[in-house]
Amino acid sequence: MDLATILGILSGLGLIMYTIVSGGNLDIFIHLPSFMVVGGGTMAAILVNFPLKEVIGVIGVVRKAFTKDETRALDIIDIFVSLSIKARREGILAIDKELRKIDSDFMRIGLEMTVDGTEPETIRNAMEAELNYLIERHKKGQQIFLSLGTYSPAFGMIGTLMGLIAMLKTLDDPTSIGEGMAIALITTFYGALASNLIFLPIAGKLKNRSDQEVAVKEMIIEGVLSIQYGEHPKNINRKLLNFVSPKLRINNEANAENPKKK
Amino acid sequence: MDLATILGILSGLGLIMYTIVSGGNLDIFIHLPSFMVVGGGTMAAILVNFPLKEVIGVIGVVRKAFTKDETRALDIIDIFVSLSIKARREGILAIDKELRKIDSDFMRIGLEMTVDGTEPETIRNAMEAELNYLIERHKKGQQIFLSLGTYSPAFGMIGTLMGLIAMLKTLDDPTSIGEGMAIALITTFYGALASNLIFLPIAGKLKNRSDQEVAVKEMIIEGVLSIQYGEHPKNINRKLLNFVSPKLRINNEANAENPKKK
Amino acid sequence: MDLATILGILSGLGLIMYTIVSGGNLDIFIHLPSFMVVGGGTMAAILVNFPLKEVIGVIGVVRKAFTKDETRALDIIDIFVSLSIKARREGILAIDKELRKIDSDFMRIGLEMTVDGTEPETIRNAMEAELNYLIERHKKGQQIFLSLGTYSPAFGMIGTLMGLIAMLKTLDDPTSIGEGMAIALITTFYGALASNLIFLPIAGKLKNRSDQEVAVKEMIIEGVLSIQYGEHPKNINRKLLNFVSPKLRINNEANAENPKKK
Amino acid sequence: MDLATILGILSGLGLIMYTIVSGGNLDIFIHLPSFMVVGGGTMAAILVNFPLKEVIGVIGVVRKAFTKDETRALDIIDIFVSLSIKARREGILAIDKELRKIDSDFMRIGLEMTVDGTEPETIRNAMEAELNYLIERHKKGQQIFLSLGTYSPAFGMIGTLMGLIAMLKTLDDPTSIGEGMAIALITTFYGALASNLIFLPIAGKLKNRSDQEVAVKEMIIEGVLSIQYGEHPKNINRKLLNFVSPKLRINNEANAENPKKK
Amino acid sequence: MDLATILGILSGLGLIMYTIVSGGNLDIFIHLPSFMVVGGGTMAAILVNFPLKEVIGVIGVVRKAFTKDETRALDIIDIFVSLSIKARREGILAIDKELRKIDSDFMRIGLEMTVDGTEPETIRNAMEAELNYLIERHKKGQQIFLSLGTYSPAFGMIGTLMGLIAMLKTLDDPTSIGEGMAIALITTFYGALASNLIFLPIAGKLKNRSDQEVAVKEMIIEGVLSIQYGEHPKNINRKLLNFVSPKLRINNEANAENPKKK
Repeated sequence: MDLATILGILSGLGLIMYTIVSGGNLDIFIHLPSFMVVGGGTMAAILVNFPLKEVIGVIGVVRKAFTKDETRALDIIDIFVSLSIKARREGILAIDKELRKIDSDFMRIGLEMTVDGTEPETIRNAMEAELNYLIERHKKGQQIFLSLGTYSPAFGMIGTLMGLIAMLKTLDDPTSIGEGMAIALITTFYGALASNLIFLPIAGKLKNRSDQEVAVKEMIIEGVLSIQYGEHPKNINRKLLNFVSPKLRINNEANAENPKKK
Repeated sequence: MDLATILGILSGLGLIMYTIVSGGNLDIFIHLPSFMVVGGGTMAAILVNFPLKEVIGVIGVVRKAFTKDETRALDIIDIFVSLSIKARREGILAIDKELRKIDSDFMRIGLEMTVDGTEPETIRNAMEAELNYLIERHKKGQQIFLSLGTYSPAFGMIGTLMGLIAMLKTLDDPTSIGEGMAIALITTFYGALASNLIFLPIAGKLKNRSDQEVAVKEMIIEGVLSIQYGEHPKNINRKLLNFVSPKLRINNEANAENPKKK
Repeated sequence: MDLATILGILSGLGLIMYTIVSGGNLDIFIHLPSFMVVGGGTMAAILVNFPLKEVIGVIGVVRKAFTKDETRALDIIDIFVSLSIKARREGILAIDKELRKIDSDFMRIGLEMTVDGTEPETIRNAMEAELNYLIERHKKGQQIFLSLGTYSPAFGMIGTLMGLIAMLKTLDDPTSIGEGMAIALITTFYGALASNLIFLPIAGKLKNRSDQEVAVKEMIIEGVLSIQYGEHPKNINRKLLNFVSPKLRINNEANAENPKKK
Repeated sequence: MDLATILGILSGLGLIMYTIVSGGNLDIFIHLPSFMVVGGGTMAAILVNFPLKEVIGVIGVVRKAFTKDETRALDIIDIFVSLSIKARREGILAIDKELRKIDSDFMRIGLEMTVDGTEPETIRNAMEAELNYLIERHKKGQQIFLSLGTYSPAFGMIGTLMGLIAMLKTLDDPTSIGEGMAIALITTFYGALASNLIFLPIAGKLKNRSDQEVAVKEMIIEGVLSIQYGEHPKNINRKLLNFVSPKLRINNEANAENPKKK
Repeated sequence: MDLATILGILSGLGLIMYTIVSGGNLDIFIHLPSFMVVGGGTMAAILVNFPLKEVIGVIGVVRKAFTKDETRALDIIDIFVSLSIKARREGILAIDKELRKIDSDFMRIGLEMTVDGTEPETIRNAMEAELNYLIERHKKGQQIFLSLGTYSPAFGMIGTLMGLIAMLKTLDDPTSIGEGMAIALITTFYGALASNLIFLPIAGKLKNRSDQEVAVKEMIIEGVLSIQYGEHPKNINRKLLNFVSPKLRINNEANAENPKKK
């Protein structure tokens, strides 16, 4: 679980809830018809805006924002280094049985193509096409959340306009003005809160996660091709470390000096 | 029919309608002069903004948002594979009579040029020019809907200003204040609803549809040129699969192994 | 005359006027000082923002938005085809006396350079420099209208602030509140209407017109160079048709088969 | 003096002033604390946002918006043409004593490098580095004015919030409501006026001026290198005229035919 | 200490404080629950939006906005010049013991690779990878402050909506209306002030600082490679001066003529 995402949403909602409850106004802030107008209207706009398949597919993408990022770039570099040692000693075919242990499908398929003797250019094209699809799919997920973050305050405002118009029509009953306006404003509150605490921040987190994943996959493409070209393990280690943040790198430099001991 | 588009607009309008009716205020929300100011003003701005021909042409483009997407990339790949087998066995002229069966004009014309012995560079230029026109035409359609989505809330606000000014002038009759403001706000309501439930989401759907169609057409250009270069069916299959999402690809990989059996 | 531009502005203004008059409030909506603040303030900001020469030059550019687009790409292609036939039969110098009949200065000057034996690279550079100046000049025109569309609602708001402040100071006379606010809002109304019915849509039309003109001029550059290279009329026709929308193209394809008959 | 800038600001301020004075409300619109909040707050934000050195340096850049543009591209072309004639007749060293007469430091230094026999690539790199610094410095000036134009209405709104909160707290004295709100709105008025009449338009003018200056300097780089390559005067004239607007060019074409007569 | 940043924030806050205190309203402007809603809500949104590691890491980046910029490009050029003289006289290994004196890790590590005989392409790749990480890390810092600047006014508005709704519900007690609205507006005031005086300007300063640092590091990469290629000290000086602003350059030109005297 990505603690920051969970913690952020829960603490934000808790804080708002606490402020409302401590003012003794919880009842007025829970208003089902207002929730329906904002939630339903936003959902309707999303259905028009995006292909149905993508709206459904977003559920898979959004999981990313809530699960912990497990990619450890240094481990992947170590695997490439040890595979390259084996490949140089015993031939490229020798790494075939190591492949089953690799978690990342993306990396394993790339290495399998290498073992099968596919040409480097074909491998690069196939892996980059795969990566581009990943980027596209992630971007779609971000776009859907950005749209949720744009449409929800808009429908909040539409709901408030509806409430105001209905209230103003019956202005002759002055005792109801306050309550009417309060209810009218609830939809704007719902829309603004959903947009700023949930939709837009999740769109941001998805973008951050996607950037990380893409960086690792670009490193993997480089690694697979280095294996195929039979580069020296030390060179592979140095080349791939360029994809890693300087802090992480320092810890690994020592190992790099003696990669075989690992 | 693109169910999501229809469903989104109908359910959104239904939800808003239901909320209004259940509050017993339907009469005040239906106000023809307000509708005229928002609809007429927006239409006038669109006429100034875009060439008349394009405003009329948008009707053809908008159909895309409401009709089902029928392009099946895998079927097209299969056709290319079987055509390439035939071309390699019986010569490029042999595929001439297969062309009538192809639905896509874009694909058929490209293949006809190939059969006619046109040079690859000329084919590529002609097909890319065609594709660029398609992209331009789609972009124009999206721009018109984005403009509709920008001008309609603006004319909603202009209508509200007109209503407020008229009401404020006759402020000495306090019983009419509420009704005056209610009517003034209706135009903003119309503009915001039209923009956020119809215009902007349709602009979004048009963009999504255009992206899909362009991806398929780029694949077709690649396919036509591969046929002309007489590439091996298996290579054509692999190359074109790079244009397809990984999920779809898996199902087709099996066929690709034995393309001739199809 | 570009009917859409005229029709859009007149029908938009007419609609707003009709709504105001039918409410019997025409007098309050015509307020010279408000008009002065919005119009004068916007004009002052434009003078600061753009070089004087360009503000004056915009008048020439804006004419484009109101005059009919006369460029007929197909006619220009026909001229290139018949010139190329003549040039191939009778030599490049033979087309010299045909040049006087050509309407477009841009095309004629390019062809004159060809007849004079100027090198192709020099011709291309000169024509592209000319085209870039055109694009720059059009862009400046669009920017001025976009700025008019941004500054006019801003000065509308400034006028409303001035009116509100003056009114609030004399709040002790409650009978004047309504009229004071009504007058204060007039400037916002003027600014919003001018921006959304005139300035922003004209900026949009200028952009659309510029795109069309640039596309035709790019085709002309290609055509002039094809004449100089002595390409075959049929090739010139096919090449230039790539610059034309597919619909137009179909009608011309028949002619292209037998260009000499024309 | 750039008359348009001066005229725009003075006439805009005059118009606003006249409208205020003719309404007899000058006293309420002059409110020092409001001026302090908007001006001081905006200045504070600018100090945080930009390095101190650049905030101070902006004074030099802003002078550009108020002084007349003196660059005459045609004169510069004439100088290049006559220098190239001299260089071809008497050798490159002969132009050394002409250099003192050249106003533009940028042009003179470039030509001095040429006379010194510096390699063309080094000259181009040095001059382009110089030009890039100019562009960067201008961009910084524009950014500071854009930021002034963004922060000033924000601090206007902050001032209004402060005024409203203070006024609402003492709502029990109803006679002061009007005056309190009037004073509260003054800061928004100040911020909006400063932004839309001064800061944003000056940012626009700086951009326009910078574009002009960069275009002339790009022409000078081309000219200096043409001198070094010993190109023919007529070619230099033609090449440099491509940097000049078509209108200006026509007047110069005649001279170009006989550059020596000048 | 970066005086401008400190001075800007302190003087801005001081000015606002002074205006509030001199109006005698300090008590109402200090409202802990309002502070909690804006600060807590913004922080919650940031936690959802960015990976936890980056939110924590931003503290290191923000220090940049408050510490003085110590990079002196001219000193670095002098070091490169004197190192190149030594390297040309006594061989590249001779500069090894000079490296300890160099402050910049980035520069020292680059030179160490040079002394170790690493290939130029590898050095450039490693240094550029390092620089790209720096740029990425700085960009993340700026993005977090931009997000703080976007979310804080949004939660200010959410707090105001909550206050208004609670107040409107109890409208029957008219004496509390003013105070209720005053308190409701405090959150918008907090959000707007934090955004416009602290978050957005700091994001701007971080961008400015990052640009400066990147320019110096690009110069260092060029310098390290020049040392390795054994270029002439005078050429190195001239090449690196292109990275320095023209003003600084003039002072150094004299030295460049006689670099050995230093």
